[in-house]
Amino acid sequence: MSTKPSAELPTFDNPNPERDYEIEIINPEFTCLCPVTGQPDFAIMRIRYIADQSCLELKGLKLYFWSFRDQGCFHEAVTNTVLDQLVAAVSPRAMEIEAVFNIRGGISTRVIVRHGASDKLGRVAGLKSLNPAVFA
Amino acid sequence: MSTKPSAELPTFDNPNPERDYEIEIINPEFTCLCPVTGQPDFAIMRIRYIADQSCLELKGLKLYFWSFRDQGCFHEAVTNTVLDQLVAAVSPRAMEIEAVFNIRGGISTRVIVRHGASDKLGRVAGLKSLNPAVFA
Amino acid sequence: MSTKPSAELPTFDNPNPERDYEIEIINPEFTCLCPVTGQPDFAIMRIRYIADQSCLELKGLKLYFWSFRDQGCFHEAVTNTVLDQLVAAVSPRAMEIEAVFNIRGGISTRVIVRHGASDKLGRVAGLKSLNPAVFA
Amino acid sequence: MSTKPSAELPTFDNPNPERDYEIEIINPEFTCLCPVTGQPDFAIMRIRYIADQSCLELKGLKLYFWSFRDQGCFHEAVTNTVLDQLVAAVSPRAMEIEAVFNIRGGISTRVIVRHGASDKLGRVAGLKSLNPAVFA
Amino acid sequence: MSTKPSAELPTFDNPNPERDYEIEIINPEFTCLCPVTGQPDFAIMRIRYIADQSCLELKGLKLYFWSFRDQGCFHEAVTNTVLDQLVAAVSPRAMEIEAVFNIRGGISTRVIVRHGASDKLGRVAGLKSLNPAVFA
Amino acid sequence: MSTKPSAELPTFDNPNPERDYEIEIINPEFTCLCPVTGQPDFAIMRIRYIADQSCLELKGLKLYFWSFRDQGCFHEAVTNTVLDQLVAAVSPRAMEIEAVFNIRGGISTRVIVRHGASDKLGRVAGLKSLNPAVFA
Amino acid sequence: MSTKPSAELPTFDNPNPERDYEIEIINPEFTCLCPVTGQPDFAIMRIRYIADQSCLELKGLKLYFWSFRDQGCFHEAVTNTVLDQLVAAVSPRAMEIEAVFNIRGGISTRVIVRHGASDKLGRVAGLKSLNPAVFA
Amino acid sequence: MSTKPSAELPTFDNPNPERDYEIEIINPEFTCLCPVTGQPDFAIMRIRYIADQSCLELKGLKLYFWSFRDQGCFHEAVTNTVLDQLVAAVSPRAMEIEAVFNIRGGISTRVIVRHGASDKLGRVAGLKSLNPAVFA
Amino acid sequence: MSTKPSAELPTFDNPNPERDYEIEIINPEFTCLCPVTGQPDFAIMRIRYIADQSCLELKGLKLYFWSFRDQGCFHEAVTNTVLDQLVAAVSPRAMEIEAVFNIRGGISTRVIVRHGASDKLGRVAGLKSLNPAVFA
Amino acid sequence: MSTKPSAELPTFDNPNPERDYEIEIINPEFTCLCPVTGQPDFAIMRIRYIADQSCLELKGLKLYFWSFRDQGCFHEAVTNTVLDQLVAAVSPRAMEIEAVFNIRGGISTRVIVRHGASDKLGRVAGLKSLNPAVFA
Repeated sequence: MSTKPSAELPTFDNPNPERDYEIEIINPEFTCLCPVTGQPDFAIMRIRYIADQSCLELKGLKLYFWSFRDQGCFHEAVTNTVLDQLVAAVSPRAMEIEAVFNIRGGISTRVIVRHGASDKLGRVAGLKSLNPAVFA
Repeated sequence: MSTKPSAELPTFDNPNPERDYEIEIINPEFTCLCPVTGQPDFAIMRIRYIADQSCLELKGLKLYFWSFRDQGCFHEAVTNTVLDQLVAAVSPRAMEIEAVFNIRGGISTRVIVRHGASDKLGRVAGLKSLNPAVFA
Repeated sequence: MSTKPSAELPTFDNPNPERDYEIEIINPEFTCLCPVTGQPDFAIMRIRYIADQSCLELKGLKLYFWSFRDQGCFHEAVTNTVLDQLVAAVSPRAMEIEAVFNIRGGISTRVIVRHGASDKLGRVAGLKSLNPAVFA
Repeated sequence: MSTKPSAELPTFDNPNPERDYEIEIINPEFTCLCPVTGQPDFAIMRIRYIADQSCLELKGLKLYFWSFRDQGCFHEAVTNTVLDQLVAAVSPRAMEIEAVFNIRGGISTRVIVRHGASDKLGRVAGLKSLNPAVFA
Repeated sequence: MSTKPSAELPTFDNPNPERDYEIEIINPEFTCLCPVTGQPDFAIMRIRYIADQSCLELKGLKLYFWSFRDQGCFHEAVTNTVLDQLVAAVSPRAMEIEAVFNIRGGISTRVIVRHGASDKLGRVAGLKSLNPAVFA
Repeated sequence: MSTKPSAELPTFDNPNPERDYEIEIINPEFTCLCPVTGQPDFAIMRIRYIADQSCLELKGLKLYFWSFRDQGCFHEAVTNTVLDQLVAAVSPRAMEIEAVFNIRGGISTRVIVRHGASDKLGRVAGLKSLNPAVFA
Repeated sequence: MSTKPSAELPTFDNPNPERDYEIEIINPEFTCLCPVTGQPDFAIMRIRYIADQSCLELKGLKLYFWSFRDQGCFHEAVTNTVLDQLVAAVSPRAMEIEAVFNIRGGISTRVIVRHGASDKLGRVAGLKSLNPAVFA
Repeated sequence: MSTKPSAELPTFDNPNPERDYEIEIINPEFTCLCPVTGQPDFAIMRIRYIADQSCLELKGLKLYFWSFRDQGCFHEAVTNTVLDQLVAAVSPRAMEIEAVFNIRGGISTRVIVRHGASDKLGRVAGLKSLNPAVFA
Repeated sequence: MSTKPSAELPTFDNPNPERDYEIEIINPEFTCLCPVTGQPDFAIMRIRYIADQSCLELKGLKLYFWSFRDQGCFHEAVTNTVLDQLVAAVSPRAMEIEAVFNIRGGISTRVIVRHGASDKLGRVAGLKSLNPAVFA
Repeated sequence: MSTKPSAELPTFDNPNPERDYEIEIINPEFTCLCPVTGQPDFAIMRIRYIADQSCLELKGLKLYFWSFRDQGCFHEAVTNTVLDQLVAAVSPRAMEIEAVFNIRGGISTRVIVRHGASDKLGRVAGLKSLNPAVFA
């Protein structure tokens, strides 16, 4: 029953493409490597999107995030990359990626990247960090 | 005193149809089956609506949600279906369904679907998941 | 020193009618009876308003809420009734009543009713329920 | 890939039987039926135990809890039954089952049942309810 | 389907009298009248007990608590009375009643009364108040 | 080193008058007397403002708030008075005073008063009460 | 209807002197003056006691705490004094006073003083400070 | 491996200058000296910005904040200064600095300063103070 | 400046071996692989110990935990292994390892293993899971 | 009005030496330097003690903690040193120092050191960290 990380992003048909509605997916288990020190980094990744013709399949998405486990990634670049790849996969009407990285050097970082008609995405509270004090 | 699940949605006359006001109903006990694995899924369902001539009756709504207990449901589709069926039952001026599904494969999912003049619905904070409580 | 419930709503002169400002009053001790089963119901009631020439007197308001203790009330209707009676008493420039009812049949209910220039009322977070999990 | 509920409780060999140590497993997705009304009930189930020669296998445990989905169960009895069946399966040195049931009739219920040398189990905070207000 | 308050306390047979186990029941909707001012008082009532031959039936317990709605009660006395009456009804091996009363005059009150082998009751966190700041 | 309450409000030159920026000052230790009963009242006072040529000096502000300790004050009037006096002292471009008073008679009160271009003040969450349950 | 601070401590007969039970009273509105600077100090005061023949009357207790409003008090000394005076008033079997003072110079202080058979007082969580709420 | 405080602000090339996206950096370890008393002050500093051609490098930013450790700083002035220096370093399209200072004299202070097209920055909840944690 | 995972555990001399005192170290970034599915698992690891002649060096400990990143580990076994290896490295007077694993199949797991005079370790609250934060 | 850091620890006479009572002092603003990297470290320091003939004076204690600002300190050693110096200053009947250090390298550290009859100190919950997630 062994599975593998995969950069592919399987999709399924949006069951209600006639309607703009919002899908939110949160993965609190994102981990990659720091390209400078080689040490592990950790983040929560949140996807919010309005699907057009296709939706992200959850099991595939899990394997996709897993594929970053051994890659060196800068915070700003990897958040943009995830957005670009998910947009390429499902061509959403709107999408937002929010990544909250664990404290390094006493400092927390969050990156928020948007695509398309992102003002259609309802306002929700910001993600909490895994080291949540500072984000409240 | 035994009761049964029921797909019917009894209603009652809106006591104040001359006024746009907001009704919110939260059911933290929604459960259905995963159509792929057949295993149980769990969600909190929140309804927010502005009634027109009729309102949702709570006891009937409970039996309605119960009727999903043995059905196979995809997250996106079932949230849209609940909206369609509630809209058909009470023809509201505006309605929003928000469903927060329990963690599967380390990932949380939320779906938010709206109908009608949904900008009349006041902004409230997003629902919490059922999962956070457990260690607390 | 005994007091009694009273449907009257004493008022006092608004000390600053030249200015639009917001007054919020929260009563977490509202109780009435279910008109169907006759059993007690419980709610938090929140009033937010911009006074015109007169303001609600707190001690009188407490006795007013007490007068519902033995009345049968539907959730939607009683929230509208409270708004109507408070509006009749102080003719506010704007007013909002928010009522959060305790869980019945596993389900929570909130009703929000507004009068007048309610967009002048600042946005504040929704009330918590006395069974707060689901409203968070 | 479909699975089924199962009353069996697969186990595996305790990797460190030479040592008393504590294993805690929390299932916030327990659901059964009320034997009086036939309606669904919901609970969080927490198992804490000190294994002897064998340990509870998690995937099997999930299927075991699933097997209660269509059974009628009283709160006190089902908590005792779960303890008896888990004790029969792994003969632990100590075990505690704590079940927190959702609010019914405005009232929350928790049942805690212990077996064996339960004073060896470290003190931890009580479980929160899915309707957590009252348990804090 | 109308029901009435009742001072009776129906019971059922303890399904597992051979074992000492703990049952906790929380009613956040206790209300009575202040015997001095006649005004409503509010409290959360928590029962924790180890049953002997019989257990408290939940629906009956709800009606029992309802019977205090129009009675004048002092905080200390009513908590002792509830203990006495529940002990009379089920002759438990151990029982604790904890009552947390809402703020009056800026001051919160909690009363905790115990009967029998109360050291067999596990330690759990204190109840939160409905005005929870001060109890945290 | 003894100090005294003082109705004066010392100020200092705004170091950056060329820019609209927001200053928030929270005093959770406001106390005055109820003009009806003579008993102490307590509140959290929050000032948010955009300075023009001068800023409020913190030590002086503390003495200013202290000067209310023996005064009888109605909730609505005192909040307006504080605004008027602070506006007179620093002539801000915008200012908001929010006062949250402790529970009296089971009821919480909050008053929010604004002056000038208050829409320039960013939205922040409402203050918590010292009896915070109901404001959350 | 005006009232006055009073150093007297009215009591009433313990309704159940045959039983050891615990009474907890929390006053989050204690204020006195710093004997060094003359400036106001603030604290939460918690009383926990097991009554013998008499109990503390709440309204009188409120007036008693009020009598400290214009007194200069050191943290350690005033907490001991409150204990001594309450013990003199009701001769309890056990009593504990816990005082949590607001932050001064960046530092919080708590003083806990006990009298008599204080091990009979159940363990409850420590008080929260008044300070934490303000930004929340 | 010893490092030193540094007023320099190293940068790196924005990997995605074609897109407006938001970067948030939180430093809960800002400390400087009070210019009046010479005593240490503490704050959380939050930076939110939309980069243009360059981004703030985290390790350098840490050393930059460290360079304030022995400087005397007024709350309002230092927040403006940090904004000016960061703007000079990266010429962002928009930037906001929010500083929450620890309680002094019972009073909390927060300063929020913005530059450029700050309405492009999404709304997030206000920072928490460092003070709330301590008793919790 | 690149570093590598390492199974070695560097230590330093206990500066105060004449005294029993408690050291707690929490790593919320533990990750390994599930030996059955090959997929990543995540946990918080907490070490609490009373040092004898040597202490765990933090930077080395971080590299040690990193060395599990590509190993297949069962929950119960890996917690015991970590205890065995840390005990071998520093021969503590007492040690406890607590591991809280993320939700899998809707179920959370915690393992607590102790060595030596573990009753000398003060009681502290159980760890929180990583999962609760995400919606919050 | 300028003040200076000082290693001296002024005391005052215990007003109630005839009684064992507990004093808790929390300083969330402790900062020193890392002896390896030279960079700032941050901690919350909590003192809990039972005074004998003398008590710690708060203003002096603040200056004492300030004296560590430019010192290089290891976590374990500095906590022991603070205990030794406070014990030397006031010869308490019992004392406990708890220090919670901010996250470094993704890892939190807490050190708890005790002196004298520390079992006389009541159990209170552990301190929260300034990065509180992991200590909860």
